[in-house]
Amino acid sequence: MHELIRRLQKGLPSDAVVTDPDILRSYTNDMAGFCPAGTPAAVVLPHAVEQVQHTMRTAHALRVPVVPQGARTGLSGAANATDGCILLSLTRMDRILEINPVDRIAVVEPGVINARLSHAVAEHGLSYPPDPSSWEMCTIGGNIGTGSGGLCCVKYGVTAEYVLGLDVVLADGRLLSTGRRTAKGVAGYDLTRLIVGSEGSLGIVVRATLALRAQPPQQLALAAEFPSAAAACDAVCRIMEAGHTPALLELMDRTTLRAVNELTKMGLPETTEALLLAAFDTPDPAPQLRAVGDLCAAAGASEVVPAEDAAESELLLQGRRAALTALDAVKGTSMIDDVCVPRSRLADMLEGTAGIAARYGLTIGVCAHAGDGNTHPTVCFDAADEDETRRARESFDAIMELGLQLGGTITGEHGVGLLKKDWLARELGDVGLELHRAVKAAFDPRGILNPGKLF
Amino acid sequence: MHELIRRLQKGLPSDAVVTDPDILRSYTNDMAGFCPAGTPAAVVLPHAVEQVQHTMRTAHALRVPVVPQGARTGLSGAANATDGCILLSLTRMDRILEINPVDRIAVVEPGVINARLSHAVAEHGLSYPPDPSSWEMCTIGGNIGTGSGGLCCVKYGVTAEYVLGLDVVLADGRLLSTGRRTAKGVAGYDLTRLIVGSEGSLGIVVRATLALRAQPPQQLALAAEFPSAAAACDAVCRIMEAGHTPALLELMDRTTLRAVNELTKMGLPETTEALLLAAFDTPDPAPQLRAVGDLCAAAGASEVVPAEDAAESELLLQGRRAALTALDAVKGTSMIDDVCVPRSRLADMLEGTAGIAARYGLTIGVCAHAGDGNTHPTVCFDAADEDETRRARESFDAIMELGLQLGGTITGEHGVGLLKKDWLARELGDVGLELHRAVKAAFDPRGILNPGKLF
Repeated sequence: MHELIRRLQKGLPSDAVVTDPDILRSYTNDMAGFCPAGTPAAVVLPHAVEQVQHTMRTAHALRVPVVPQGARTGLSGAANATDGCILLSLTRMDRILEINPVDRIAVVEPGVINARLSHAVAEHGLSYPPDPSSWEMCTIGGNIGTGSGGLCCVKYGVTAEYVLGLDVVLADGRLLSTGRRTAKGVAGYDLTRLIVGSEGSLGIVVRATLALRAQPPQQLALAAEFPSAAAACDAVCRIMEAGHTPALLELMDRTTLRAVNELTKMGLPETTEALLLAAFDTPDPAPQLRAVGDLCAAAGASEVVPAEDAAESELLLQGRRAALTALDAVKGTSMIDDVCVPRSRLADMLEGTAGIAARYGLTIGVCAHAGDGNTHPTVCFDAADEDETRRARESFDAIMELGLQLGGTITGEHGVGLLKKDWLARELGDVGLELHRAVKAAFDPRGILNPGKLF
Repeated sequence: MHELIRRLQKGLPSDAVVTDPDILRSYTNDMAGFCPAGTPAAVVLPHAVEQVQHTMRTAHALRVPVVPQGARTGLSGAANATDGCILLSLTRMDRILEINPVDRIAVVEPGVINARLSHAVAEHGLSYPPDPSSWEMCTIGGNIGTGSGGLCCVKYGVTAEYVLGLDVVLADGRLLSTGRRTAKGVAGYDLTRLIVGSEGSLGIVVRATLALRAQPPQQLALAAEFPSAAAACDAVCRIMEAGHTPALLELMDRTTLRAVNELTKMGLPETTEALLLAAFDTPDPAPQLRAVGDLCAAAGASEVVPAEDAAESELLLQGRRAALTALDAVKGTSMIDDVCVPRSRLADMLEGTAGIAARYGLTIGVCAHAGDGNTHPTVCFDAADEDETRRARESFDAIMELGLQLGGTITGEHGVGLLKKDWLARELGDVGLELHRAVKAAFDPRGILNPGKLF
């Protein structure tokens, strides 16, 4: 351990190597529940690429595990410490290096906060669409590591679709450049996409070239109340089948609505079984909103409320954004799941989740990026109650089981980390898992990059 | 050889193994120039996944190279035979297995022709955007192998963005399933994207789950004539900087315009140095076309001609689609390049290409997916003239050199194959190339999948 610290310090500024146990403790985990965290040997906070390379060369020579970290807002334990590891926090590498409106790209360091980038590109009339709920805290490096999504995905897709090229420090400290600055390119294997979502297991992202879009008009939303979750899901199917492409299409169930009211006093309709929010950001959204409203009514909506203007739309969305915090407050602790199913199976997913809640005697609120079939069943429980905690964990697994049965995936946007490791093996199957291991070995033969995560 | 044929025949229908030398000869190459083709041992034409697995198991056991083929419309020699290989043609596996309008996906076999899929999904009000020029002949499997683009990419992106999941027969005959049917998913490494564009070097795609979009309104185009290529490129930059997202933004230079007139008698303006075509497929494209017309005028356009309706727009685009055939006819042979540069460097790319044409005493016509910065400088030459042929080859290399100098890539959408192998090594650099080899070895340790291509 002494040897590790001594060698790290040789190539790093004095403030970049932290060994104080109290500070170390504050870095040991992300925001996932049910995930163990070990005791790290050090936190390293590099300012520059060469310092990351020095860290990796040192770790490689001494075979010390390295866990990369952004803002640690992740929900799967991918950033949790393993015993004796280096926690490599990229938060100090936070420069926006370039914004180019003609090429519609930004070049950034990994520690840039998502919201900061969004505001910076907006000044050039551009938008960086990926908008995870944690966008005011989370880093672009973390978004790349987990392949983050958000509310916008039904129209604009996920983080992966906005990463054109990467600079990556490899396990042995060498620098790899992947991808391109150009709008298109097919030269060689798509190592960029391989690294996006790899949760720090293939290399340390130290620079990213991101695609931007022209800023769309402000979005206009409507809210529709439904007497059952099934009717709301039917509306989602009708909307997508009719060829609409809303900028967001979100669902909240009654449990979530009540929790949000409790927290925010917003006065959302509590007798409603499911609320659907749809928004369009086209130059003239009114006809689309009308058509979507009609489809909701045809699917059995008891009420359809279009927003008058962008401000009223934003208010509607605030309720949705408060959902996780609100559900967390219901019983003190919550576990958010992230199962994504084909949208045609959304109703089955919600019905099955209600069944699981009943079977385990638990409160499970569901909010969903309904347009993507990406559900976030959130198990509310009292962590001081051992039996309830055990049931919460079991119901969480039952939800993933259900998702796979419905042709879905165990994670739409939160990643695997520690939380869903066993489930990933099941989703991938033996052949898939073996290839994952082979690819991992090609990048990291000594297995020092975020070991024990993913698989 | 006898042993190979005997073992292949044991698991395949009699019509699936072809050894007739005349037929073999007709399969040995794709549409690339300057690429050698060897003599295959057999052509195998499987009807089913199990037959592909049998072929790969046999090849793996006997260490025989396998070259997968679609319609052989590729432009880089990736489908060319190597001596003694099995040419594995997927053209008979051509079923559209599913079109699902709610989930907006199609599930297809690799031999489905791009246009057939496009027409089939259109009947459901859906669109499969990737539209390579060869779309009426090329297969989805081939599109996936090369990561094809087309005219639509400036708005809708490339093939890779529409591939959600794949079934892949591995080098040893095992079946790998990658990806998902869902709109989103981040479970494990993105092996789907790794395989897209890998030119048959990692596995044989036998089934693909593709994302579809709602069908957009018919597009409306305008044509703008410019006194110089630089002015046309300036217009492209202004259009993108102003935040427009045209459904296509194409450029043809004077050489191309003349060649198209010669072939089609369309009467395109020959005194114009560059013609720009822009189209929008929004519900109300008129204001956007007006704004783009104004930007063209501001950049120095001598004439801006908006189409009256969709039929007139289609006529404008026919000229663009005829470009390659037309340039081919100029001197009997042509070599199309595929360099993509940041769009802010488009003018430098065109000016540099004109300089290369002058230096080598050659006719080089340029058409370009200008909105993407993806240029197709096309060298016209007489293949019977040895010196001209040598100069054509050298100018082709000079064009790639220029593209890399401008921060571009050697291939925007055609792939590497045999044609650009040496250049890929240069673009990737030593570390990148080493990782490519390691990934290849992870999938294909015996090196039997399309050996000698890519790197």
